Amino acid sequence: TFLVLVIQCVGLTAVILVAVWMGHYRGGFDWGPDNPSKEFNYHPVFMVIGMIFLYSDAILAYRVFRNVKKTYSKVVHGAIHIGALLFSAVGLKAVFDSHNYAKPPIPNLYSLHSWLGLAAVILYGIQWLSGFVAFAFPSLSLGAKKLYMPHHVFWGVAILCLATGAALMGITEKALFTNCFTKNFHYSALPSEGLVINFLGVAIVVLVALVIYVVTR
Amino acid sequence: TFLVLVIQCVGLTAVILVAVWMGHYRGGFDWGPDNPSKEFNYHPVFMVIGMIFLYSDAILAYRVFRNVKKTYSKVVHGAIHIGALLFSAVGLKAVFDSHNYAKPPIPNLYSLHSWLGLAAVILYGIQWLSGFVAFAFPSLSLGAKKLYMPHHVFWGVAILCLATGAALMGITEKALFTNCFTKNFHYSALPSEGLVINFLGVAIVVLVALVIYVVTR
Ligand code: HEM
Ligand code: HEM
Ligand code: HEM
Ligand code: HEM
Ligand SMILES: O=C1O[C@H]([C@@H](O)CO)C(O)=C1O
Repeated sequence: TFLVLVIQCVGLTAVILVAVWMGHYRGGFDWGPDNPSKEFNYHPVFMVIGMIFLYSDAILAYRVFRNVKKTYSKVVHGAIHIGALLFSAVGLKAVFDSHNYAKPPIPNLYSLHSWLGLAAVILYGIQWLSGFVAFAFPSLSLGAKKLYMPHHVFWGVAILCLATGAALMGITEKALFTNCFTKNFHYSALPSEGLVINFLGVAIVVLVALVIYVVTR
Repeated sequence: TFLVLVIQCVGLTAVILVAVWMGHYRGGFDWGPDNPSKEFNYHPVFMVIGMIFLYSDAILAYRVFRNVKKTYSKVVHGAIHIGALLFSAVGLKAVFDSHNYAKPPIPNLYSLHSWLGLAAVILYGIQWLSGFVAFAFPSLSLGAKKLYMPHHVFWGVAILCLATGAALMGITEKALFTNCFTKNFHYSALPSEGLVINFLGVAIVVLVALVIYVVTR
C-alpha cells in the first residue's frame, strides 16, 4: 500500500541522516584498536539500521506480502529479524570496543541509554527465539499459537518502542558529548549538524509511529 | 485492582526520584530572574508529575472507578488531565525562564528534546480539547462518539509514548550537562546521583509500560 511506501522513504531518510552525521560530520569510520572514536561511529549507524529500520520492515512484511503464501512471508519476517539482530550485535560490539580501546578506557554500561538499550536488544533476542519456537516449527498446537499471538504482537511493538527510546537517548548523548568536547560545534546555535541530528530523531519517531499505526489496525 | 496499586507505587517512586535529584543533588528550587539555574530545577519535577504521573493516573481512572457511574469517572478523567496540563505549563514556563534569564541567555528550542517535548504538550492540549468536545457535552451522536473512541485511545497512548521519549531525552541531557559542567559529578563512575538518574528513567519506563498493558486489554 501507499503508506508502506511512505514508511520506506522515512526509514531510508533516517538511515541516510545517521550515516551523514557519523560519516561526514563525525570523521567517518574505522575498525580496530587504533581508532576507537571512529569505531564508535559504526554504533549509531548499525543500531538505527538494525533496531529501527530492519525491525520495522520485518514487522511490515505481512502487510506487503499479503497475496503470497503465509509460509513465504513468515520466512521473510523471521529472516529480516535475523538481519536486524546481526546489525545490532555488530553495533554493540563497536561501542563496547570503542570504550575498551579508549585511552584511558571508558567504563561500560553506566548510562540510562546503555541500560535501556541493552535491555531492548536482550528482549529482542528472546522475542526472536519465542517467535521461532512458536511459529517456525509445527511445534505448537493451533490453539496454543492463537493464545500466544497477541503477546507476540504486544511485545514486538513494546520492544520497538523501547528501542526507539534508547535511540533518542543515544542521539541526545552523542549530540551533547560533541557539544561539550568539540570546539566547533555549538548545539544551541543549531548549525547544519544540529539540524541533521534533530531531523534524524524526528524521522525515527515518525517512522515508528506509522509502523505502529499500521500494525494496530 | 492489584496492578493499579503497583502502578501508583512506581509512579510515586519516579516523582520522588526526580524531586531528590533536583532538590538534593542539583541545589534545590527557586523562582524568578535572580536564580535561573534553580528555577530550571522545577522543570523536570513538574514535567514528570504532569506528563507522566498525572497523565497515567487520568488514563487509569476508568479502571479504578469501575463500579461508579460513568459520568463520575468521566469528570475524574477530564479533571486529572487538566491538572496534568497545568503542571506541564508551569514546568515549561520554568525552563523557558531559565533560558531567558541566564547570563548570557540560552537560545530556546534548539534541541531534539525540546522539539519532541513541545510537540507532545501541544498534541496533549489538542487531545484534551477533542475529548472535551466529543464526550463532555452531549454534542456528538452516540454513533459519532463510537467512531471517535478508538482514535481517542490510540492518540492518548501515542502522546504518552512521545512524552516518555521526551522525558528520557531530558534526563539524558541534564545528566550530561551536569557531567560536562560540574567538577564533582562523573556519570561514568556511577555515583549515587547517577543511580538516582538511571532508576528515575527505569521507573518511568516501567510505569508507562504497565499503564499501556492495562489500557490495551
Ligand atoms: C536502539 C538502538 C541502540 C541501542 C540498543 C544502544 C545500546 C548501547 C549500549 C548497550 C551502550 C553501552 C556500551 C558500553 O557501555 O560499552 C551504548 C553506548 C552509547 N551509545 Fe548507544 N545504542 C543505540 C543507539 C544509539 C544511537 C542512535 C546513538 C547516537 C546517535 C547512540 C550513542 C551512544 C553513545 C554516545 C554511547 C556511549 C555512552 C554510553 O555508554 O551511554 N546509541 N549504546
Ligand atoms: C524479534 C523478533 C520478532 C518480532 C519483534 C516480531 C514481531 C511481530 C509483530 C509486531 C507482528 C504483527 C505483524 C502484523 O500484524 O502485521 C508479528 C506477527 C507474526 N510473527 Fe513475529 N516477530 C518476531 C519474530 C518472529 C519469528 C522468528 C517468527 C517465526 C518464524 C514469527 C512469526 C510471526 C507470525 C506467524 C506472525 C503472524 C502474522 C499474521 O498472521 O498477521 N515472528 N511479529
Ligand atoms: C515530557 C516531559 C518534558 C517535556 C515536554 C519537556 C519539554 C522541554 C522544552 C519544550 C524545552 C525547551 C525550553 C527552551 O527551549 O527554552 C526543554 C528544555 C530542557 N529540558 Fe525538558 N521536558 C520534559 C522533561 C524533562 C526532564 C524529565 C528533564 C530532566 C530531567 C528535562 C531537561 C531539560 C533540559 C536540560 C532542558 C534544556 C536544554 C534544552 O533546551 O534541550 N526535561 N524541555
Ligand atoms: C489529553 C487529554 C486526554 C487523554 C490523553 C485521554 C486518554 C484516554 C485514554 C487512553 C482512554 C482509554 C482508557 C481506558 O480504556 O481505560 C480514554 C478514555 C476515555 N476518555 Fe479520555 N483522554 C483525554 C481527555 C478526555 C476528556 C477531556 C474527556 C471528556 C470529558 C474524555 C473522555 C473519555 C471517555 C468517555 C473515555 C472512555 C472510557 C471507557 O468507556 O472506557 N477524555 N481517554
Ligand atoms: O540546566 C541546564 O543546563 C544547560 C546549561 O545551562 C548548561 O550550562 C541548559 O541549557 C539548561 O537549561
